[in-house]
Amino acid sequence: VTARAPIDLAALVGEVRGGRPRAVGRLLSLVENDDPALPEVMSELAVSTGHAQVVGLTGAPGVGKSTTTAALVRSLRAAGQRVGVLAVDPSSPFSGGALLGDRVRMQEHALDEEVFIRSMATRGHLGGLAVAVPQALRVFDAASCDTVLLETVGVGQSEVEVAGVADVTLVLLAPGAGDGIQAAKAGVLEIGDIFVVNKADREGTQALVREIRGMIALGSTKAWKPPILLTVAVRGEGIEELQAALEKYRARAEETGRWATRRLERARREVEGLVLARLRADLRTVSGADLDAVAALVRDGRLTAHQAAERMLTGL
Amino acid sequence: VTARAPIDLAALVGEVRGGRPRAVGRLLSLVENDDPALPEVMSELAVSTGHAQVVGLTGAPGVGKSTTTAALVRSLRAAGQRVGVLAVDPSSPFSGGALLGDRVRMQEHALDEEVFIRSMATRGHLGGLAVAVPQALRVFDAASCDTVLLETVGVGQSEVEVAGVADVTLVLLAPGAGDGIQAAKAGVLEIGDIFVVNKADREGTQALVREIRGMIALGSTKAWKPPILLTVAVRGEGIEELQAALEKYRARAEETGRWATRRLERARREVEGLVLARLRADLRTVSGADLDAVAALVRDGRLTAHQAAERMLTGL
Repeated sequence: VTARAPIDLAALVGEVRGGRPRAVGRLLSLVENDDPALPEVMSELAVSTGHAQVVGLTGAPGVGKSTTTAALVRSLRAAGQRVGVLAVDPSSPFSGGALLGDRVRMQEHALDEEVFIRSMATRGHLGGLAVAVPQALRVFDAASCDTVLLETVGVGQSEVEVAGVADVTLVLLAPGAGDGIQAAKAGVLEIGDIFVVNKADREGTQALVREIRGMIALGSTKAWKPPILLTVAVRGEGIEELQAALEKYRARAEETGRWATRRLERARREVEGLVLARLRADLRTVSGADLDAVAALVRDGRLTAHQAAERMLTGL
Repeated sequence: VTARAPIDLAALVGEVRGGRPRAVGRLLSLVENDDPALPEVMSELAVSTGHAQVVGLTGAPGVGKSTTTAALVRSLRAAGQRVGVLAVDPSSPFSGGALLGDRVRMQEHALDEEVFIRSMATRGHLGGLAVAVPQALRVFDAASCDTVLLETVGVGQSEVEVAGVADVTLVLLAPGAGDGIQAAKAGVLEIGDIFVVNKADREGTQALVREIRGMIALGSTKAWKPPILLTVAVRGEGIEELQAALEKYRARAEETGRWATRRLERARREVEGLVLARLRADLRTVSGADLDAVAALVRDGRLTAHQAAERMLTGL
């Protein structure tokens, strides 16, 4: 362990507000490393947040998620927006600068000072994804990003979880074997606020649209009927329409109260995640000895796990 | 909701002990559905458990995990063992009889009354994988299985977690682009007690073995030096040697105390998982109203998530 220079929090937060990329990166590292200064940092940041729209992108590998992300960044930048991109890797314990460096499509934005790109590993983070991601989003938000694109990296078991921290969720699909609606993971379809059929110059696009439409009709009790948009992200086709759909979604969601409800749900999960992480830490420290003792009884078949849990709860 | 016939627990547990497949399946369903009768069932079962060796199988898609599982089942059966196979799907909220039905290689064992095959979805289970899987393992154990093979289905973000509930972990690799050591997920290599290079009749086998050996040498502070075995599972080659390595591992682990330590760690995680699940439930019911209130303050930037968590903890 090397000695760390003390952090001048006020200065750092000020630089983040000014949109200085290095400061934003530094604050995101504090979030990722679950730095002890985080509660204080977040307290400083709080007043500057609440503005950015968080757009979750989900979809099976091969549908063109990163191409669509890059095309959206281009389009949002053309409209004068400041944009954040957060790629979450829930499986890796490692921080991932390298990860995004590989993503060729993002390189055109790498030198743009109005685009913040970051990948973040959430495994092992106190409270996991549900706590780490909202905090990272707050950093982008405080840096005056108008839109933050939130994407999972790797194969997405946690896509549903990521969608839970977004304001609006795009579900990407593409025509062709393996990329259709069959390939979409259970649960992913239900979370779509906007459906995007990418690679829409390919055969099978209309069939896929019909499939999605049928499925939307089945589950359509909600006030917002998810639109289905066609894109060819690699050529930027349909991306302006997608951007318009995002704006429309926000306007409508703010009107109906869905916007506030979602953010309440997100805050609830975040607080719950923090509380449980703290309780877990207590369980390991305060009653660690008891836990070891009852665990040994469970291992030896002299107590069931349920009885042991009961005993721990009484002792807490 | 249909009315359920009351379960005669004593009779059911008796049938499980007798190794009746239907009873085993029924008890596994109780585990999967987190049935209210579970604490009582587990209490009845406890005395009959502790015998089975739980073998975790991990590896990237394409290395031949299910072929190796099937080959091991064949070999263990030939040695007169009773065998359980538990395929865990941590991503799906759905129970998966259908899932294993698709697995052609398992079909030769489908009619063997000494082989219990089951897939289990753990998402949404109280306490998740860390709680559900040990309970399911106890059912196999109580049914007098000598070995239980534990495998993740789908792409394995949770492989490391699954390995945490096994007595011994096999890490499978295969030569060839994309299946080598590079493709193995971070963290997976560290958990290997035995390395298996499958498809060892292919080019690149020796290079892969050297790679693994180099990596083992790097991290080799532990008492057990993981062996590297070569198999061609599709032809059953090297499987007897693998079975022998499993026996050797158990003997050595029991000798050194590693066996008991691991099982203690597993029991600790299980109890902790149950305790936290209960606390989470309390958080939602007992202090649900407070949680909503503080979450609203967090959403509106009037309280940070950390401050809110603090407030909840004081109130608990």
